[in-house]
Formats: sequence, structure tokens, C-alpha cells
Amino acid sequence: MTYRILDAASLRDWLAQQPELSQRLGGAAADWSIREVSDGNLNTVFLVDGVAGALCCKQALPHVRVAPDWPMPLERALYESRYMRAVAPAVAGLMPELFAYDTGLFLIVMECLTEHEVLRSALIAGRAPSGFSAVIGTYVARTVQATGWINQPFETGARLLEQFSGNTALTRITVDLILTDPYRVCDRNPEPEAGLLDDVKALQTDEILHRAVGRLQDRFLTVRQALLHGDLHTGSIMLHGTDVRVIDGEFATMGPVGFDCGLYLGNLALHLCAAPHKAAELRAEMVAFWQSFSEELRSALQNGGGDMWALSGPAGRQDLVASFLKDILRDMAGFCGLEMIRRTVGFAQVADYGLCGTAQERLLARQKALQIGRTLIVEGGSQRSFDGVLSLMGL
Amino acid sequence: MTYRILDAASLRDWLAQQPELSQRLGGAAADWSIREVSDGNLNTVFLVDGVAGALCCKQALPHVRVAPDWPMPLERALYESRYMRAVAPAVAGLMPELFAYDTGLFLIVMECLTEHEVLRSALIAGRAPSGFSAVIGTYVARTVQATGWINQPFETGARLLEQFSGNTALTRITVDLILTDPYRVCDRNPEPEAGLLDDVKALQTDEILHRAVGRLQDRFLTVRQALLHGDLHTGSIMLHGTDVRVIDGEFATMGPVGFDCGLYLGNLALHLCAAPHKAAELRAEMVAFWQSFSEELRSALQNGGGDMWALSGPAGRQDLVASFLKDILRDMAGFCGLEMIRRTVGFAQVADYGLCGTAQERLLARQKALQIGRTLIVEGGSQRSFDGVLSLMGL
Repeated sequence: MTYRILDAASLRDWLAQQPELSQRLGGAAADWSIREVSDGNLNTVFLVDGVAGALCCKQALPHVRVAPDWPMPLERALYESRYMRAVAPAVAGLMPELFAYDTGLFLIVMECLTEHEVLRSALIAGRAPSGFSAVIGTYVARTVQATGWINQPFETGARLLEQFSGNTALTRITVDLILTDPYRVCDRNPEPEAGLLDDVKALQTDEILHRAVGRLQDRFLTVRQALLHGDLHTGSIMLHGTDVRVIDGEFATMGPVGFDCGLYLGNLALHLCAAPHKAAELRAEMVAFWQSFSEELRSALQNGGGDMWALSGPAGRQDLVASFLKDILRDMAGFCGLEMIRRTVGFAQVADYGLCGTAQERLLARQKALQIGRTLIVEGGSQRSFDGVLSLMGL
Repeated sequence: MTYRILDAASLRDWLAQQPELSQRLGGAAADWSIREVSDGNLNTVFLVDGVAGALCCKQALPHVRVAPDWPMPLERALYESRYMRAVAPAVAGLMPELFAYDTGLFLIVMECLTEHEVLRSALIAGRAPSGFSAVIGTYVARTVQATGWINQPFETGARLLEQFSGNTALTRITVDLILTDPYRVCDRNPEPEAGLLDDVKALQTDEILHRAVGRLQDRFLTVRQALLHGDLHTGSIMLHGTDVRVIDGEFATMGPVGFDCGLYLGNLALHLCAAPHKAAELRAEMVAFWQSFSEELRSALQNGGGDMWALSGPAGRQDLVASFLKDILRDMAGFCGLEMIRRTVGFAQVADYGLCGTAQERLLARQKALQIGRTLIVEGGSQRSFDGVLSLMGL
């Protein structure tokens, strides 16, 4: 079908022509309830309810939803659908099920998570049940074993490189917004609050920091270890009780595993800066994340199955896996720092700072995030344990 | 045109229908002289002479030329033509000019290097004029600046990843023949001469070596720094006096720069094992290679132009470039060792050993290559200078 921006009426017509989707909804098309719930920066999202079931329909717009003069290729929906297909067998139950993808409409139709809440909102509201981070650790570990070189023949990774390297429109956002803009004068950077001007200026003139950011740029662009979600922050996770789901894989690209880990950790650390009284519970979430991630990955990689490390027996593999996990840990620390800085002074900031009671508290929270972020970027590359990373955060 | 295996007659008919190519040859089609000169393992090659000029026509066969029961996808010719197009602007005059590529025939038509000789043959015959390695160093440095992330917007590397990651049939050869087979029992490995049996057995049971090979497998598969030639041995280089050309880019893939460097260096080192009296001149070639490579690359990367390292000024860049060159050096040492071992006991061995006067000399030469190869693989990763790498070779 030729592309056009859907509204509730035209979406209803389209769904009515799809037998499998109509059947999932049940009843007559006229009786389906359709409401727009667009919330992210880039796309329109509709929830459709029928007598038998519900669907979530996500359509790419030809521009950034919240900035209509910023054009954005529609193909990102294709990459998101590819990502869902690539990791679905490994993370069944941890992401919404993909029901259909329409190549012309750039429309994803997936399982509707009606009862779920965005993790960031739940955290801000103080109602996120503990333990969600262990699920995210499992999620990342499973995507790595399904899409990396250690458990799969090398052709799997090669095919993923072929399928995802064209996702340049969204990778350009990562390169600019995460890896570059916060450290230079740039029109996209919002005007900082007055008290933060010196801190922002310092980021733009700190040569040691710039060199360390350069090393992370290198890691992000050249180290293609596994298929990344690419935007794994607390706004890309939904939960309902213990049911935790990862959404919004449109930034997917092959890259360093520590990138997904670092973005996730960075968003917990940002929340901590805004809500320092929650230190104990957030530290526990961070520990649970790394523990479930590293244990699941270690055990999966020990079995192997790929061309990489195929020569080594159990002892050799143990050593290689340990070294791989140490590389991930270091990358994670650095990317965590990048995420903390860009979400504090860059184009897309986090709502968590709204938790601060006063402007002065908010300023201090932001300054702390910038300071921890810098420390993680500059010193992350020499860490040897997760405790070391936590101590860079003052935990 | 539908694929069919060309002979001299059908090639003449096809060329006669290509106005631009006919014009390059000049005169009547019936007067063109066509001779087959197939020499490599994989393809048929014809040289065509006319009154105005000459052409080299290289066609992919659906199987390995020297092993007809080993099927080999034709697409490798497509990747070779893509490689030539991708690097041509950077290395004009250092590779044959590409005149045409026929997608149906999987046929490359290029500049004919009638007066040139394969470097390996020239070395064996003792008639390679000194200085060729400096040209190869320049060649590799220029391909890196044209296809890597440091001098180009990241979209350049992303497009190359998209275009070359499908070259899995030939990368599979690299993964098997270079990175795995020599270290395990495998039908493809030829039966070693009696005196080498213990050495071959040792390669198959050396856990420290296997772990180090595992690290190089990791580097080869995950570190995508620039577009590699992928098979840069002395049989992939032709020369005539000071005119040096790189041919046979069908193994092209994005990978670690040290892979191209290491394969080249490894073939010089193999020649040295077979002809130890040439130590001084071969050492000089190795030094010239690294000097021209590292100096040209250092100066090109200092200027930048890519997203990577864009934040850093001259001092920061100098530091980042130095660290990049050190990584290349270490990878180079390791891949050099892998090449030495696989060309000594693996599927495709080198003719250089024919220089040995007696069977005993040949055995000692091979043992020396295996010993140096192992040292380079195990200790290459901790080298800090090119002199350090040379000393691992006993130079």
C-alpha cells in the first residue's frame, strides 16, 4: 500500500482488509475502539481494541513527530520490524509479539500492552516493583547469544551487518546526539539553565574528556559484537507487575554490547541523581542487571556454537569469556557516562529531573549527573569489576 | 547476459558487442589475440590483445578452479568489482583500472598488466627490484583513509558494511583456512611431510595458541575498521620495475586494518624462512612497508574529516592516532603469524618453499615458519613497536 499518514479512520479501513488482524480484534470493524497514544519523539501510535483482542499500531512519520521540520526517513520502521524478527526467538515474552509489518505504510502491528506502564514513568511515580533490571539483564544477554559471533556461525553476524548497517538515519541521531553534540557548540543543544552554563562550557573545552569520547566513538562505530537495541533507556521498557517488555527497537544496529548495557545503566543513574534517597533500591537494580546479564551470558557463551573460539576447550573458553565480559564492562561504563551527559544537557533530556523539589535541587542533580558522567567516560575504560563502576557513581 | 563459462571464442563474441571495450582493443574482432592465463585458485583469466590496446578478462567459475567439486558462488566477482570501485579513487595507479563489470557473466574487464610479473614469482626468481613494500604500505594506508571511519562521515563505513558483509562465501574461506583449520584435524588440511607430523600435532593441541587464535578470530569478525583487500599476499601483487599493482580483491570485507598488513608481512616472512640468506633485503622491505604505511596513515588521520574523533584538536588526535596505530601493529603481528602457519601446513601453501635446496632444508624452513608464526600469534598482542615485531621474527 502506498504510504500515507494514517488517522483512526484510515487505520480502521486498513485493518478491516487484513483478515488475520481483523480476526485478532474480533467483531465488526465499526465497533473497534481506536485511540492515538503517540508519546515518543518519532512516531504515531494507535491502540485498537476489539471484542476478542487488542493491537498496537505504530507508524513512522516522514519527520520527527515533535519537530516537524526535522525530516526522518520512513525506513526506520523497517529496521524496527527486522530487529523484532531477529531477536524474537531469543526473547519471547520479553518484547511485544510482532503480528504484521506493512512495507508500504511503514506500519508495525504488534501485541498491545494495555496494562503495562513505561518504566520511566513508573520509576518517577515510585511504583516500579523491584526486580525489573534482572529481566533486562536477561534480555540483553539473550540478544547477544542470538546475534553475536560466539554462539552462531559467522554468517549470522554477517547477515545482520548486511541487514542493519543501512539504518543510518537513526544511527546518525546516536552519533550526533549521544556521541558528539553535548561536547560542542551546536544549534540542537537546548539553552541550558543559567546555573549550568559553566558546566556546559566545560564539556565543550575538556580535551581529556574529548579524547575519551573519541575512544567511545571508535568503539561504537568499529566494534560490531552483536545486534544492539540501540536505545535501551527506561522509556523503551514497559512493565506490569513482573511482566517486563522491551519496545522501540528502531535504532537497531550491530555494535558493542556495552552500548545497550550502558544506556540502560545510565538511565538508572540519572534517576538516582534526581532521586538520591532511592540510592539503595537503584543500586540493587544495577547489581541485579549486571548479575543476571553476566551470568546468563557467561553460561551461554561457555557452550559456544560459533566459529569464534571454536578451537578452545572449557578452560580456554572461560578465559576468553571473562575477557569479553571485561570489555563489555568497560564499554558499559563509558556509554553510561555518555548517556548521563546527553540526557542532562543534550537534545532529548529526561523527565526524571522533575522529581527534584526545587530549581536548586534540580541544578545540583544535573551537575552531579554531569560529574559522574565525565568520570565514567574518562575512567570507565580501566575498570575491572562492576563494583568499580558503581564506585565511580559514588555507590 | 545469462551466465555461461566463457572460452576464447565466446569471450570474443561478447567483447565485440561492447562498443567501449571493442574500441579500447581496436581493429577487427577476428584479429584480437586471446589467450587463457588462469593461474589463481578460483577463476579463469583471459588476456586480450588488439591493435590499439589490451584487456584482462576475469570470470568467476561456479566452483574452485583447482578443485571442481568445491562449489563457490559466482557473487565473488561482484564483490571484487565493488572493491575496485570503492578504493579506486584512493589508489589510482596502484591497482589495474576497472573498465567494465558484467553482472550476468560475473566477468570483470580491466587494465591488462602485460609486462608485470606476480611479486611472489619475482621474489622466488630473485628479480624483484627493492622498494615494492613501500608502495604496498602506501596502498593500504590510502584504502584505510578512503574507507575507514576517521576520515569519512560514518555513513561511508555503514554503506561499505552493507555492501560487503554479504561476501560470506569468501569470508568463510578466511574463517576456515586461516583462522581455524591449521589448528584442528580437518580433511582440507593436506597430509604433512613425515618430519612435520609432530609440529602439526602440536598446533592441534596447544591451548595457549588456541586461545590467542580465538582472540584474533574475535578481532577479525568484530573489529570493522576499514575495507580490507582481504587476501593481500605476494601472489596478489604484480610489478614491473617500480610500477606496483594490487590485484584480486574478491575477499574484500570490512575488518581490522592489521589483517591486510599482517597477510602481507607474513608472506615476506615466509619467503625469508625459505631463503634465509635474503634476511637483510627482506628486513628492509618490512621496515619500508611499515614506515610508508604508518607515516602516510598518521598524516592522513591527523586531518580527520569523519565523525570519529571530530571533537579532538591536534594534540588529542595525535594521541588517538598513535593508539590506533598500536592496535594495528598488534593485530598485524597476530595475523602475520596466522598467515605463516596456514601457508605452511594448510590448504593453500606457498611456492616459496621450492627455494629450499634439499628436503631437509625445506623441513627446517617450515618448522621455522611454524615457530615464528606461533610466537607472533601468542606474543603479538603485547608488542609496542615495529622493532618488537621484527624481533619476534628473529630480525
